[in-house]
Amino acid sequence: MTRIAVALFQDAEELDVVGPWEVLAAWSTQWPEDGVEVFTVADSSEAVTCAKGLRVLSDHTWEAAPPIDVLVYPGGRGTRRELADPVVLERLRKLREQDVLMTSVCTGALVFAAAGLLHERPATTWWGSLETLAELDPSIDLRPDDRFVDSGEVVTAAGVSAGIDMALHLVARLGSVERAREVRRYIQYDPAPPV
Amino acid sequence: MTRIAVALFQDAEELDVVGPWEVLAAWSTQWPEDGVEVFTVADSSEAVTCAKGLRVLSDHTWEAAPPIDVLVYPGGRGTRRELADPVVLERLRKLREQDVLMTSVCTGALVFAAAGLLHERPATTWWGSLETLAELDPSIDLRPDDRFVDSGEVVTAAGVSAGIDMALHLVARLGSVERAREVRRYIQYDPAPPV
Repeated sequence: MTRIAVALFQDAEELDVVGPWEVLAAWSTQWPEDGVEVFTVADSSEAVTCAKGLRVLSDHTWEAAPPIDVLVYPGGRGTRRELADPVVLERLRKLREQDVLMTSVCTGALVFAAAGLLHERPATTWWGSLETLAELDPSIDLRPDDRFVDSGEVVTAAGVSAGIDMALHLVARLGSVERAREVRRYIQYDPAPPV
Repeated sequence: MTRIAVALFQDAEELDVVGPWEVLAAWSTQWPEDGVEVFTVADSSEAVTCAKGLRVLSDHTWEAAPPIDVLVYPGGRGTRRELADPVVLERLRKLREQDVLMTSVCTGALVFAAAGLLHERPATTWWGSLETLAELDPSIDLRPDDRFVDSGEVVTAAGVSAGIDMALHLVARLGSVERAREVRRYIQYDPAPPV
């Protein structure tokens, strides 16, 4: 069983959460034989209001969450509070020490950097926060042109919509390229930006 | 003021909802001078459980919703129940009669077809439901290769992730191409599927 947790917090960016959620939960529910479980986790069981106002309820609290193999950490303006919260940073360090695969979307990378998880690693984030990422940890090897950066134990994605591409990469890495292609087909991910 | 409602219902597909939500709510919140308001609407104020298990709270009930200029109707397996519900179909017909711009994502098009909204129009839907769409209304001019189809009063998008492209088209149509490009940049929508 592979247990994937998607973190929720006040002012997390909606698509940062739901892009990976859709990809990973589609994998989990459409191919149950792969033994993947996906759930959301937050500080409390009350509704979390996301950055653009959408209100979401989490499946578990951090306290009562089942064991986690993979963590997806979204961005959004709530990360500015998260990266200054010692409880959050200690939680992330502990998960990393337990060999949880740590993945971020958008400015979720800022919180990872504040926790020291990106030290001397290649990483990326939302284009508007690349400088902040470098300030948080100058040892980071910035990759502004990458859609996502897989540095082994830690994976970071670029802004907002990049979480979809990163999540498909996770399906390929943890499952297979063939399965990732099937998930991509399921969500009809043949993007064609009209502008 | 342009009021955009994103419909929520039991077993709506998560990314069908949140793809357009992110695009349209980013437009609304980052460019308030454009006078756009985006909200979710559902049958009740209780949590809606989406198709892959995410629980979301709506901003308004249908009964108490403010006037609507644009409706975004998601797909998901919940549409099979929706398309057989006379209350849902009558609601959609009334909105259409009031000149609401009707837009669907994925199998949301099936509900539109059942309500008669796609009669003799070009339209698309999720690849796995093209046949069902044709059965619901044989007068529909199926466009299986289009990412979305704008037929004027009604816009339909292909499966799941296509809602992002359609929503950017809506920003271009209702705002401007320049604004749609800015929203695209904000959500860093430079998709690069890794598989």
